[in-house]
Amino acid sequence: MLMCMATFAQQSLWGGGKKIVSPEVHENNTVTFRLEAPHASKVQVTGDFLPAIIRETSWGVSEEAGVADLVKNSDGLWEYTTPEPLAPEFYNYSFMVDGMKIADPNNVHQIRDIASITSLFIIGGGRADLYKVNDVPHGTVAKVWYESPSLGINRRMTVYTPAGYEKGDQRYPVFYLLHGMGGDENAWSDLGRAIQIMDNLIAQGKAEPMIVVMTNGNAIQEAAPGESSLGYVVPTMQLPKTMEGSFETHFPEVVEFVDKHYRTKANKENRAIAGLSMGGFHSLHTSKQYPDMFNYVGLFSAAIMPFGNVSSPIYDDMEGKLKIQFDKKPALYWIGIGKTDFLYKSNEAYRKLLDSKGYKYEYFENEDGHIWKNWRIYLSEFAPRLFK
Amino acid sequence: MLMCMATFAQQSLWGGGKKIVSPEVHENNTVTFRLEAPHASKVQVTGDFLPAIIRETSWGVSEEAGVADLVKNSDGLWEYTTPEPLAPEFYNYSFMVDGMKIADPNNVHQIRDIASITSLFIIGGGRADLYKVNDVPHGTVAKVWYESPSLGINRRMTVYTPAGYEKGDQRYPVFYLLHGMGGDENAWSDLGRAIQIMDNLIAQGKAEPMIVVMTNGNAIQEAAPGESSLGYVVPTMQLPKTMEGSFETHFPEVVEFVDKHYRTKANKENRAIAGLSMGGFHSLHTSKQYPDMFNYVGLFSAAIMPFGNVSSPIYDDMEGKLKIQFDKKPALYWIGIGKTDFLYKSNEAYRKLLDSKGYKYEYFENEDGHIWKNWRIYLSEFAPRLFK
Repeated sequence: MLMCMATFAQQSLWGGGKKIVSPEVHENNTVTFRLEAPHASKVQVTGDFLPAIIRETSWGVSEEAGVADLVKNSDGLWEYTTPEPLAPEFYNYSFMVDGMKIADPNNVHQIRDIASITSLFIIGGGRADLYKVNDVPHGTVAKVWYESPSLGINRRMTVYTPAGYEKGDQRYPVFYLLHGMGGDENAWSDLGRAIQIMDNLIAQGKAEPMIVVMTNGNAIQEAAPGESSLGYVVPTMQLPKTMEGSFETHFPEVVEFVDKHYRTKANKENRAIAGLSMGGFHSLHTSKQYPDMFNYVGLFSAAIMPFGNVSSPIYDDMEGKLKIQFDKKPALYWIGIGKTDFLYKSNEAYRKLLDSKGYKYEYFENEDGHIWKNWRIYLSEFAPRLFK
Repeated sequence: MLMCMATFAQQSLWGGGKKIVSPEVHENNTVTFRLEAPHASKVQVTGDFLPAIIRETSWGVSEEAGVADLVKNSDGLWEYTTPEPLAPEFYNYSFMVDGMKIADPNNVHQIRDIASITSLFIIGGGRADLYKVNDVPHGTVAKVWYESPSLGINRRMTVYTPAGYEKGDQRYPVFYLLHGMGGDENAWSDLGRAIQIMDNLIAQGKAEPMIVVMTNGNAIQEAAPGESSLGYVVPTMQLPKTMEGSFETHFPEVVEFVDKHYRTKANKENRAIAGLSMGGFHSLHTSKQYPDMFNYVGLFSAAIMPFGNVSSPIYDDMEGKLKIQFDKKPALYWIGIGKTDFLYKSNEAYRKLLDSKGYKYEYFENEDGHIWKNWRIYLSEFAPRLFK
């Protein structure tokens, strides 16, 4: 049988060797991490399952992932077990081997966040069950290219169509969901578990069946690093033309493409826009620039104003445009932020502005800061409020 | 500006530090690999850019990737530069740090092959330009779920629709493209560069616009590891029910789903099936089981017969079914294999059988063995011959 196994296999150039189980999620939700590194003198694990290290800096609060030491066990493997069960969550981690940061070589479930690769695991239960692939009807996830005349390039988006879309001729509302700086059209589906969250909320009857469009918010980019004609480039966080009006200006091209190629309910009542960080900024400014486009707006840990010497008509006359937008009474204007987010103060100031004008919005405040854990929570809070 | 960069970023928990460029592809197509591992005593690189180590074993020829030593440069980084320019190709590699195999932590472009993660780079030119994302019209790639009554589960497939599909009401031929053992519905798009190959061949006018359906050939699997309700499991090569008839038996359900949900030309003249290794085996047996289903058949490094005590009506009366299939004169029956492939001899025997009956087929033989390099070549040879 061994022979048979080898015979029909795909190439797996560097397979073989004994299998190390890492991470191992125990029944009580403690987790053991293991690594074979016989010549290393120090092995650590870092990740968002460890309490974050929070520092006050001159420009605000910074958060860093905690670190724990692995010790060699009797098998000669480095090992660390969490002292307490972990709360339900979708977690990322990396090892530090004598200071060299690597993904866990025994865990094939990895993810790219900007220029880092980290390893993954999920502790199920509670809200985190929304992040799992469950045995429910699944929507289709497509990588689709569209032309942008205003940006002069072909660009890629991720489009989620709900389970059943292919079968009927029903039309659906559309939710535009935008990533943060350093992200791309893969961020919400990969890091944000948006596909699983939507599949599960819809299957539970908590969210309406809807199309979710995840654009690429970097106006000069065709697609995620490695997936465009630029080839295998190193992703960088700061790209030109990310927060100077080009993306917001081009947005009607996105809506036009989606309304043309999908069975949408093509009107304001059936359109939502939300995003995290820079994507919240894009949602804020796009929704007020085109006040007849979106009836639902979500700002997740949003940046509010552009920095530096940005000159774009998009950002002109902010108060005047907000007045037009809010006079039209959007069905939902939703703001979510964590208490230790370094954008907390600018969001506080923005809420004061909205309050002073009597503009209605829903506000959701929770623990922690500028992290995916919160953005997954905000998505799972926001999506059930749409199109009802 | 630094402050601004940090402010709007997505969480990137472990970013920062100085950036090491690895791999660096030089203008003359030599490549430098670099790693920071100050405490390591031995660092090596292994990958398919190095000459393979070929061994004769009692049950055939085995291939292993070569290994090269990195040396510490004046910056304290481990470094290796290929002595010669590399030929155009899509390459995979890993580092070995004191015997611990890891992906390159400075290269975010990685891929899973069964239970291994390896790092990627491309040397363009020649046929390898087909493997690159070029500035050409791009098809849509969708992950789609379908119900299989015969297997009793919902299952995922990858569907490529050619550029322009969304715009018109044209109907397209369909090419079913199957992976090998240990693979899944992601294998051809990720490791096989099938999306890029199809985009480029179609853009160059060398292949007809067609739908390409990449199924999951493991009959008990819903979807790739980590993407089904089983959660984050460790992928294994040998799964039950992979080569005992269930997949072939269920295949008409796949065709029915595709014909129902896509604008297909739903007849034999407009259907092709091909696969690598186990997928070649599935193509062989599915096409002869349903002789009115496929007009084009491709066997890429194919397994021919099931091993062990497999009992399924699918494999009964092989010669009788082949006679029915070939009496109907398929438009193309294509066999490709490498000279050092451990399935070479069984393919030779199969060709002798076809020759002895006077059954027509095209035969493509080249260097190397049971590796993705060859399967990309076979796809780029086979696809242009379809539907003409």
